[in-house]
Amino acid sequence: MARSSFKDIDCAVAQALEQVGDAWTLLILRSAFMDVRRFEDLQEHLGISRKVLSERLKRMIGHGLIEYRKLPGDGRAKEYRLTDKGRDLHVVILALMDWGEAWMPKRWGRRIRVLDRSSGEELRPLRPLTRSGKPVSPRSIVYEAGPGAGEVFYAAEQIRARRA
Amino acid sequence: MARSSFKDIDCAVAQALEQVGDAWTLLILRSAFMDVRRFEDLQEHLGISRKVLSERLKRMIGHGLIEYRKLPGDGRAKEYRLTDKGRDLHVVILALMDWGEAWMPKRWGRRIRVLDRSSGEELRPLRPLTRSGKPVSPRSIVYEAGPGAGEVFYAAEQIRARRA
Repeated sequence: MARSSFKDIDCAVAQALEQVGDAWTLLILRSAFMDVRRFEDLQEHLGISRKVLSERLKRMIGHGLIEYRKLPGDGRAKEYRLTDKGRDLHVVILALMDWGEAWMPKRWGRRIRVLDRSSGEELRPLRPLTRSGKPVSPRSIVYEAGPGAGEVFYAAEQIRARRA
Repeated sequence: MARSSFKDIDCAVAQALEQVGDAWTLLILRSAFMDVRRFEDLQEHLGISRKVLSERLKRMIGHGLIEYRKLPGDGRAKEYRLTDKGRDLHVVILALMDWGEAWMPKRWGRRIRVLDRSSGEELRPLRPLTRSGKPVSPRSIVYEAGPGAGEVFYAAEQIRARRA
């Protein structure tokens, strides 16, 4: 597959997309979060070719998102397990799910309810909050240079200044 | 570009990825959130070919994520503006940014600080909460069939039962 590289773009979103900016990769992660972990199971759940699935899994292992591990006890079976880095993408998957349910809803309601096992409570849709816990509307969000700011931030600043 | 279709997959994540499961599309959205809105400005900010940029913008207009509008006052200039549906993707972009900053950090700290304009406060990283506001750890998240549950949910359930 011809694929652009985002590795050299000095932006956290681009750095993330270099590793997960591909629809199959994100759908594989979704299945992994639903505890579908073996190659044949992923193939069945995703309706994906062996070739594409292998290629994506290999790339995901390379990026440290999943590991391929023997099951304890069962001699031959192996499965793909999320690493801490991969599991940390649950926020991205939930954000996509919230948006999909909000804008491409089913007539009968949500396809999947997301619950907290320990309390049994349903999760609320993700929403940005300030450090003190105040909800932030999207139009109130602004970006400032951080200590690691680079080209992408300053280029946007220049473009905005030119158009102001 | 050869591209898989996720339109027929009965899953909110797949429905979202059908529209935004492409790295360039998500990077264009990132630039739009940074108020980069004209074709030439987007091209400069993204370092993307005219051809790829046009194709993605057209598709994004088709999905109702952005509109191409005349500027008030300025006779000829036109710019791409986020629709409500497009702006609602700020959570997805922030989730990718949080993950990128956490796992591919710069030595000096965050590239971009995200602030609430009205309070001046910095935003905290996105984190799932229950309806009553309790933080939920990723390992405590479980999925249940919602009223609109379909094939994707029940297939995962069958696969889990087979492996249990």
